[in-house]
Amino acid sequence: MMFIDALQNAITKNNSLLCIGLDTDADKIPHHLKNEKDAVFVFNKEIVDITADLVCCYKINSAFYEARGADGILELKNTIEYIKSKNSHIPIILDAKRADIGNTNNGYITYAFDYLKADAITLHPYLGAEALKPFVEQKTKGLFILCKTSNPGASEIQNLQTQNEPFYLYLARKVANEWNKNNNCMLVAGATYPEEMGKIRKAVGDMFLLVPGIGAQGGDLEKTLSYGLTKAKSGLIIHSARNILYASNNTDFAQKAREEAKALRNAINKYR
Amino acid sequence: MMFIDALQNAITKNNSLLCIGLDTDADKIPHHLKNEKDAVFVFNKEIVDITADLVCCYKINSAFYEARGADGILELKNTIEYIKSKNSHIPIILDAKRADIGNTNNGYITYAFDYLKADAITLHPYLGAEALKPFVEQKTKGLFILCKTSNPGASEIQNLQTQNEPFYLYLARKVANEWNKNNNCMLVAGATYPEEMGKIRKAVGDMFLLVPGIGAQGGDLEKTLSYGLTKAKSGLIIHSARNILYASNNTDFAQKAREEAKALRNAINKYR
Repeated sequence: MMFIDALQNAITKNNSLLCIGLDTDADKIPHHLKNEKDAVFVFNKEIVDITADLVCCYKINSAFYEARGADGILELKNTIEYIKSKNSHIPIILDAKRADIGNTNNGYITYAFDYLKADAITLHPYLGAEALKPFVEQKTKGLFILCKTSNPGASEIQNLQTQNEPFYLYLARKVANEWNKNNNCMLVAGATYPEEMGKIRKAVGDMFLLVPGIGAQGGDLEKTLSYGLTKAKSGLIIHSARNILYASNNTDFAQKAREEAKALRNAINKYR
Repeated sequence: MMFIDALQNAITKNNSLLCIGLDTDADKIPHHLKNEKDAVFVFNKEIVDITADLVCCYKINSAFYEARGADGILELKNTIEYIKSKNSHIPIILDAKRADIGNTNNGYITYAFDYLKADAITLHPYLGAEALKPFVEQKTKGLFILCKTSNPGASEIQNLQTQNEPFYLYLARKVANEWNKNNNCMLVAGATYPEEMGKIRKAVGDMFLLVPGIGAQGGDLEKTLSYGLTKAKSGLIIHSARNILYASNNTDFAQKAREEAKALRNAINKYR
């Protein structure tokens, strides 16, 4: 099945545009779990078990796992395997922000899709479509190209004027009109720049946008939805991690995570 | 010691601007090694032992190791540990082409510098200096920002006009004049675009450029050196991997690798 169809199915089944980020920081998990073997994996399993009916996908940021080297990579692999074993209908985005020259990208493709068995990946655009071709040829996988990122300094590069428009917007059009031949390209657009998101939406039609920046980073939910939703009130994947994962630092962490996730899922749906 | 000083010392000691890429493809190593446990690590050790007096640094592309998951990460870590145990004066660049938002970059910093113990890393520029700040604050480490990459389609994004010049050149100036406060930023500039390299050189003074693209990718050595060397006949790190690693597929692979490496080191020095 194509990533985009799996995503659409999960959106419908769970009535949700919420993506929970399993960006688990080993230092921030509840104290009673910290001494367990594979503590991050144990934590992730509990979060997945209690939220799997509330999300359209999970996103996992590779950096949090790479920080613990080979052990972390195994916990990342085990987390994906666990999600697939219990909830195979929920697609998983590996937020790895990769991109190398074409030949070398094959290594990252093997890592993301064959070894970890993720369904989608995030990619830097800087080397151009020719370098990303090995990714684009993965027709069943989802590719989220960084377009307008959520960080405070994103505009330094991304809003430079080129071809009579800011770079991020030029890129959005390019991805929609040229790079997306296999209908597997999407974009990353941060909630911290809702007006830019509106311009991206106009440029790319109904393309899915992965939206970080709600919550700890200060993105405004109402504005994001108002500027970013498609006419069919879809097309956005609203990411949240810290507010959900660390809603409580106690033995009730999973229940509190569910409450946070449900509240955000429902808050999103109020505008749909 | 700062990366740049370690690099300078190795350049002087080995009279070399050659950087060997330990981008070892498990499928391409000699047949007699393939069945060994940790075959890639065994191969890497032989290459390092026989070339350590010919290089100014080693570069290791993470993609080739990530493709084999946690086992590959351990071979990468072991390779770096081995180089440091035998040749602690030779700096090591982790070619991981990372960049995320500031907070998340800490995970990659832990991976590259604390876990793997690399001395330098390659980085995408797309999120801007604010996102890269945690890297820039690693004062003793080297940061190679992708500027003009060696792939055939690099110009699609990198040569877009902005601020009255192509983007790669605008970025080169920005890195030299603004991002490089700690004197630990350098650039990646492919040998496949020698004229662009000349423009970068004029824009950034004596800053070191990491130069992929000689050999299999078709970059011309003479042109590269003529456009890229500083007035002091330095400032370039000339990368080569495939031509050296796979010079022979037989039991003489290490000796043949040395011959290739020495020939390239000497060919570079003819123009210095």
